[in-house]
Amino acid sequence: MTVLATADPVQELDLHRVNINDPFLGQYQRLVRDVVIPYQWDALNDRLEDTEPSHAIENFRIAAGQQQGEFYGMIFQDSDVAKWLEAVAGSLCQRPDPELEQRADEVIALIAAAQCEDGYLNTYFTVKAPQERWTNLAECHELYCAGHMIEAGVAWFCATGKRNLLDVVCRLADHIDDVFGPAEHQLHGYPGHPEIELALMRLYEVTRNPRYMALVNYFISERGKQPHYYDAEYEKRGRTAYWPTHGPAWMVKDKAYSQAHLPLALQQSAIGHAVRFVYLLSGAAHLARLNHDAELHKTCRRLWDDMVNRQMYITGGIGAQSSGEAFTSEYDLPNDTVYAESCASIGLMMFANRMLQLEGDARYADAMERALYNTVLGGMALDGRHFFYVNPLEVHPRSIPFNHIYDHVKPVRQRWFGCACCPPNIARILTSLGHYIYTRREDALYVNLYVGNTTQLPDGLTLSISGNYPWHGEVTIAVKTAQPVQQTLALRLPEWCEDPVVLLNGKPCAGEVKRGYFHISRLWSDGDSVTINLPMPVRRVYGNPLLRHIAGKVAIQRGPLVYCAEEADNGSALHNLWLDPRAEFRVIEGAGVLKGSLLLQTPVQRISSENARNAPLYRYDMPGMPDAAPQKLTLIPWFCWANRGEGEMRIWLNEIR
Amino acid sequence: MTVLATADPVQELDLHRVNINDPFLGQYQRLVRDVVIPYQWDALNDRLEDTEPSHAIENFRIAAGQQQGEFYGMIFQDSDVAKWLEAVAGSLCQRPDPELEQRADEVIALIAAAQCEDGYLNTYFTVKAPQERWTNLAECHELYCAGHMIEAGVAWFCATGKRNLLDVVCRLADHIDDVFGPAEHQLHGYPGHPEIELALMRLYEVTRNPRYMALVNYFISERGKQPHYYDAEYEKRGRTAYWPTHGPAWMVKDKAYSQAHLPLALQQSAIGHAVRFVYLLSGAAHLARLNHDAELHKTCRRLWDDMVNRQMYITGGIGAQSSGEAFTSEYDLPNDTVYAESCASIGLMMFANRMLQLEGDARYADAMERALYNTVLGGMALDGRHFFYVNPLEVHPRSIPFNHIYDHVKPVRQRWFGCACCPPNIARILTSLGHYIYTRREDALYVNLYVGNTTQLPDGLTLSISGNYPWHGEVTIAVKTAQPVQQTLALRLPEWCEDPVVLLNGKPCAGEVKRGYFHISRLWSDGDSVTINLPMPVRRVYGNPLLRHIAGKVAIQRGPLVYCAEEADNGSALHNLWLDPRAEFRVIEGAGVLKGSLLLQTPVQRISSENARNAPLYRYDMPGMPDAAPQKLTLIPWFCWANRGEGEMRIWLNEIR
Repeated sequence: MTVLATADPVQELDLHRVNINDPFLGQYQRLVRDVVIPYQWDALNDRLEDTEPSHAIENFRIAAGQQQGEFYGMIFQDSDVAKWLEAVAGSLCQRPDPELEQRADEVIALIAAAQCEDGYLNTYFTVKAPQERWTNLAECHELYCAGHMIEAGVAWFCATGKRNLLDVVCRLADHIDDVFGPAEHQLHGYPGHPEIELALMRLYEVTRNPRYMALVNYFISERGKQPHYYDAEYEKRGRTAYWPTHGPAWMVKDKAYSQAHLPLALQQSAIGHAVRFVYLLSGAAHLARLNHDAELHKTCRRLWDDMVNRQMYITGGIGAQSSGEAFTSEYDLPNDTVYAESCASIGLMMFANRMLQLEGDARYADAMERALYNTVLGGMALDGRHFFYVNPLEVHPRSIPFNHIYDHVKPVRQRWFGCACCPPNIARILTSLGHYIYTRREDALYVNLYVGNTTQLPDGLTLSISGNYPWHGEVTIAVKTAQPVQQTLALRLPEWCEDPVVLLNGKPCAGEVKRGYFHISRLWSDGDSVTINLPMPVRRVYGNPLLRHIAGKVAIQRGPLVYCAEEADNGSALHNLWLDPRAEFRVIEGAGVLKGSLLLQTPVQRISSENARNAPLYRYDMPGMPDAAPQKLTLIPWFCWANRGEGEMRIWLNEIR
Repeated sequence: MTVLATADPVQELDLHRVNINDPFLGQYQRLVRDVVIPYQWDALNDRLEDTEPSHAIENFRIAAGQQQGEFYGMIFQDSDVAKWLEAVAGSLCQRPDPELEQRADEVIALIAAAQCEDGYLNTYFTVKAPQERWTNLAECHELYCAGHMIEAGVAWFCATGKRNLLDVVCRLADHIDDVFGPAEHQLHGYPGHPEIELALMRLYEVTRNPRYMALVNYFISERGKQPHYYDAEYEKRGRTAYWPTHGPAWMVKDKAYSQAHLPLALQQSAIGHAVRFVYLLSGAAHLARLNHDAELHKTCRRLWDDMVNRQMYITGGIGAQSSGEAFTSEYDLPNDTVYAESCASIGLMMFANRMLQLEGDARYADAMERALYNTVLGGMALDGRHFFYVNPLEVHPRSIPFNHIYDHVKPVRQRWFGCACCPPNIARILTSLGHYIYTRREDALYVNLYVGNTTQLPDGLTLSISGNYPWHGEVTIAVKTAQPVQQTLALRLPEWCEDPVVLLNGKPCAGEVKRGYFHISRLWSDGDSVTINLPMPVRRVYGNPLLRHIAGKVAIQRGPLVYCAEEADNGSALHNLWLDPRAEFRVIEGAGVLKGSLLLQTPVQRISSENARNAPLYRYDMPGMPDAAPQKLTLIPWFCWANRGEGEMRIWLNEIR
């Protein structure tokens, strides 16, 4: 459908109006502001020791003609700068910082200087291969880089009111719209790595220029058609390929890797590179809403369902394999060879965000919360300087150096990467939490996440959400308002909570449960207070019967947090710990680096491996629990694993049947 | 040590004297004779359709100057011809076949014609790169090909009495002994892929020429010394590398891959390419015995122990990973991503055979039997035309196409391979079983395997072993002799048998148990009959506590056979079958393609996955056995899995604790 519709009342709240003051996530925002953003600035300017130089800022200087030199870095290096700018934009909304703002403005001026006359912007091609512009969409990330820059331009405008970067990216978008399209002189192509789609939708939201949405519709409609664009451009450029791994021209040939094997409307499963998938679907869902495309909406829902109901880890991680950083197939979720890239869970949050705008259904927010509080937070160390690219649910460090199925698994977080996409992504998500906490829909203001914040709504209400989530489930929403305002608040009832209680001004609250949200329609007065009590007993979690990797195992969850066992607390050979299905859990406070967290303890049976190295590999006829002795199992929230050095870790544990 | 000792009384029995008439393994010998050897002949002569041409015979014709053309095939293609000859030699010992013998003699004449003046023999280098002889030992398999040809020469001589191939390989060995050694003009090198060592020891056994054993001692002593020979030859040839996978010159750089990272005496674990490891250790153990090298013997035992006690599968498979076709590390034995190459288990048998010659200890024979009756037999289909290269303990075919950790796993056996090492290896093992059944040591004739056969011993005794092993444990050894002979028979008491009974002429037999063998020293008379009763109850097998992959699981074994569950009998989702530790097993006869086998049945609980695709991925608080219903589990011997099409298979099954 190419309906170009008028604006829709669903809009993201202005981040300036959402002031995060959550004791838990607030510290992550501070970490981003005080450590990650400056750290990334140093990285972009090649000031970090012991780290692969980024050369990202340098590349822009060379492209702008301010400096001589060669391009250096990944073909998508520009996107690191864009993501940094976006994180800065979000951070300024939380706390103004004139020095930081000026530094960013200087970068923007540099970017503008690196932009070509016709609007094209990409330092790799400008510096290194200007004739090769737009000749290899399948592999060369031009539209990907453009998309991230567009997102930065939108974010900068929203944060500062300044048009400096917005104007740059509009010229870029206009140029892209000239190059791509159905006309004979245009390229009938679409990106390898999706990103431009979701970016152009954000640009459309702030500019309301219909050509941007039409272009997104074009990109998504063309994708996967036969004869295939990637093959045609491959022939046209003489069969050259950029990426050498996995065989010749694999990124051209493996169409499913980029979800371009079929038109999206015909696709049935989450497949291929996980980050590409969720970025593509984020753009598609945003388009479906603003373009009133019911078929595309259905497609988005079908693919969301396959991802979440057949291919997602309990941690909100997606992408079960290292090869291609990709999905595998339904119900195939190994815990130790998993990929679960941090960026992919961020993309899952973005996709969820668009689905929430389409449908006020808590299942999207449930998955979004699961991804945020487990994989996304788990991707960053508590010091803000070390990151996980890959997020396993089980590690056995002694085996990692020798078994190459674990080549991608690190048992501890790493400093900045050569391919540095995850840390800046984590940074920009954490500085734009307001977009995920709330969804403004026509029928209500949806509260998806119980992150402490004070927010001014356009209709005059000021909400202050407070509590000590995710450790405790008592949340208070205090209302301030100059005059009474009619509004519906939709409060999410998390799927992990059996007996939520909602009180209004101390008394049971009248409302309606619709698709996992408790809707309170009311004329709100100043001083109104809603209390949501979300009991957080320790829950045992079991896998679908088709999940062969966790047959007979149990995972422990409390509130939104998935827990795990580490060697530091429990000794090695974690597979020898057997939970008792009838045993209770104690909640205790963490100490040291885990101070502020809540840990869990339960009595378990441990099978001894004390003399195992002298025992045979196989023995006969000793069923039951040989050499089992009681032990106290300590579980920590999985997001704070690997903060105490290298050791075994496991989420899914054996349980006595 | 460079002690060059005189002949040792331990010798392999002449295969002519060992007539295999076993109802079970006899059919495999017939399969090799009637199907595999002719099939391989067609392969070597490029007569198979739908298969990568071998070009192996063609290469020899070109090298002999009888034909024009290019070399084609793997750099070690010559070894396929050598292995074929060795299988033919073994087969002729069982049943003369003048036509086959003549065909082999013609091949030998061709090989002799392809040999160079100086004794060098290798079609790849002779045809393609004569200047590059001996310049890349790390990668180019020259000594490997020489070794296999030497083995063929020895086998042909032993089988036929003819020296035609023996003379060729002696000239080859003499040439190699000229090229390699400590003198200044010689190359101080040793092979990448070990094989020459065990081959030269066999050549030494039949020729008693001390230079061959001295050369083996040289190769083994030099291996892994610093500065490293692989690096030196790499520099000398200008840093060219033959094998491109895994990164530049990986076969040169990854020293552990070829067990050349350290001198053998300093090595502590089984590491690297599994076939290389067992071939190297076979040669080393043979040398240790004939050279009276106690230190080397100790090394062989230490590395045997690490392999069998820390890195071997219940199937006798070794090599836990596809990358490098290699060992991983101790206790790291995944069942689904395993490699367990057929050739590696054959090599384990060869290594065990040498250790049995060194020590009359049944633990070597136990592992040898485990490898033979499970992985080696499992490597070949019951039709003799399809083979497994990789032997997994668990397959989930639906996941294989999508998850690249399974790229090396086939759920059904394949027709001839491009890299065709396994089928000929299986063939030559199965035609030389006599060497594995018996070990003649100074103190006794050891009976390692209860394979039906009639054997004439040099001292005048004729033994006829009969029974229906591995299905039943009653074995009879009937003695025939012209006059009474004093001899000690040492009968292996398998480690899987709790209550063996040995009778002599119907009465309890006097004897001594030494290291797993029942020694009967006696003046044997004509008509003496020994009955060995090896009860074969169904045994439950459990893993060492350090084996994380099988914590909570059980495997079923009966006699030497490991059993498995297949989808064809039990439905899919085999992980949802839960054995009852107290339930009994019924033994039943197989039918159809499994006719002649014994199957096992036991009642289990099955967790239903009927509505699973409509159920969420994770659910809370339902411990125990949800939706479990009784089912009858049917187990088949694992060696005959995958003979009924594609389907799930599992050895290690869940058991209720």
